[in-house]
Amino acid sequence: MTACLYSLRNNKKVLLLEKETIGGQIAESPKVENYPTKKSISGAELADEVFDQISELGAEFEIEDVKKIEKQGNIFVLTTDYNTYESKSVIVATGAKHRHLGLENEENYIGKGVYYCAICDGPFFKGEEVTLIGDANSALQYALLLAGYCKKVKIRTLFNRFFGEKSLIIAVKSTPNIEIMHEVKAIEFKGKDSLESIVFERPDKTTFEEKTKAVFIAIGQVPENKIFSSLVELDKSGYIIANESCETKCEGLFVAGDCRTKDVRQVTTAISDGAVAATKACKYVSTLED
Amino acid sequence: MTACLYSLRNNKKVLLLEKETIGGQIAESPKVENYPTKKSISGAELADEVFDQISELGAEFEIEDVKKIEKQGNIFVLTTDYNTYESKSVIVATGAKHRHLGLENEENYIGKGVYYCAICDGPFFKGEEVTLIGDANSALQYALLLAGYCKKVKIRTLFNRFFGEKSLIIAVKSTPNIEIMHEVKAIEFKGKDSLESIVFERPDKTTFEEKTKAVFIAIGQVPENKIFSSLVELDKSGYIIANESCETKCEGLFVAGDCRTKDVRQVTTAISDGAVAATKACKYVSTLED
Repeated sequence: MTACLYSLRNNKKVLLLEKETIGGQIAESPKVENYPTKKSISGAELADEVFDQISELGAEFEIEDVKKIEKQGNIFVLTTDYNTYESKSVIVATGAKHRHLGLENEENYIGKGVYYCAICDGPFFKGEEVTLIGDANSALQYALLLAGYCKKVKIRTLFNRFFGEKSLIIAVKSTPNIEIMHEVKAIEFKGKDSLESIVFERPDKTTFEEKTKAVFIAIGQVPENKIFSSLVELDKSGYIIANESCETKCEGLFVAGDCRTKDVRQVTTAISDGAVAATKACKYVSTLED
Repeated sequence: MTACLYSLRNNKKVLLLEKETIGGQIAESPKVENYPTKKSISGAELADEVFDQISELGAEFEIEDVKKIEKQGNIFVLTTDYNTYESKSVIVATGAKHRHLGLENEENYIGKGVYYCAICDGPFFKGEEVTLIGDANSALQYALLLAGYCKKVKIRTLFNRFFGEKSLIIAVKSTPNIEIMHEVKAIEFKGKDSLESIVFERPDKTTFEEKTKAVFIAIGQVPENKIFSSLVELDKSGYIIANESCETKCEGLFVAGDCRTKDVRQVTTAISDGAVAATKACKYVSTLED
């Protein structure tokens, strides 16, 4: 939507194609407190405000799923589930989804004890005990971050070791209020309205139940960029390879937000990409020879 | 301030040192319409809202000018005009200033006919004639952008040619509503409450006066990073060389916003850097061996 805002202000004709929810991933967050100017707002409200802003500028918008994209000469041809569109430039902002554990009732607890972003939601549990599931760099970073203000961080991992940077592993292991338990698998979430406990299974199939008000699940993110793979390069995790100017190896195709290779995936970094990608796309369109 | 927001939410002790104005460059903009969620807001209000947000989180803040920075072992020592501070990590967010023409009454017309950012302020002049002063890439980009929605864009340059990318020069020259005049020097701004005309001087010292409601001055930006040059590398324009993760060659020193090497300098890209730099700085501090 930020790319749309910038393109509209540049007087370009823009069509916003959205598969599911306006705002994407952020719209699922019940409370956002790290967007500058907003002390506290729901992700859905945040998304609505930006949608209002671009609607007032005359944004064209369709709920359609892009199934195919091709480049014919200088023109991109996009096929959705309903229509075909032609465009001089395309900005891909398909986001990424946090990988879920896949437990039966996991969805019910999202925002009610089950979280996927410690940077965003960790601060709501200052002084409390929290659980963290994951064993790689983001899990380790989350652990250190949470340990800074939580009473205790209980890391639970599937395998018998961590798979992250050595310095992070050392820091996690030497932090007194981080408790590490390897080789346990979460198999059930329990709780009435919000999460109250997690059932874990040991390698010998015995189980135990652990009380917790909050679990942070850091087992990776999943982008959905397959349809673009004929035009751009994807890294091994499926993110579109782009530089910080949101440029790809495909002229005219720019990438903004969580769907591209980058270090920190936050609303702030996504809107920044939107502004950059749109600025680049508008320049590209303006210099394109007809 | 965004770096401060993220660091405070990470429970780090943060001191914000500001030389002049909260918000920096944006605080001078009378109208901001490209910050997602804000349809229209003054730059000063925007800055105030973020300042309120971080103040509520307990931000420590001093109006002091950092005169010197040194690294002693793992500790940064900062000397201001009033005090000396020690810190494990430093985030530099000194911004950049748009280069002014240096005309006597230029400051009086800022935001009242004199503008330095066409992306930000151009859209307020849709359908009107505007003047653009400058001859390099950003001037050429601004010209194309403005030509997209202004009735006419009058480019005025000091020398007898442009100094930008060939594709931009070709696009500018072939855009019908862009009028180019080389070898003219703005020597005076005129107007009662807001800009009404500009006096230009030709190489033969003859002058002429041209009516205009808005002039965009695109003659470069000036960062102020000299005091950091012993710790980090500056590019030839004085920007601190950093990657998109805001890391520099100096461990523990991160850079956010307009003061670093980057392509698009906007509020959105600055707050993104703030979030990234703080995330990196907090990780750095957490993994630092005491």
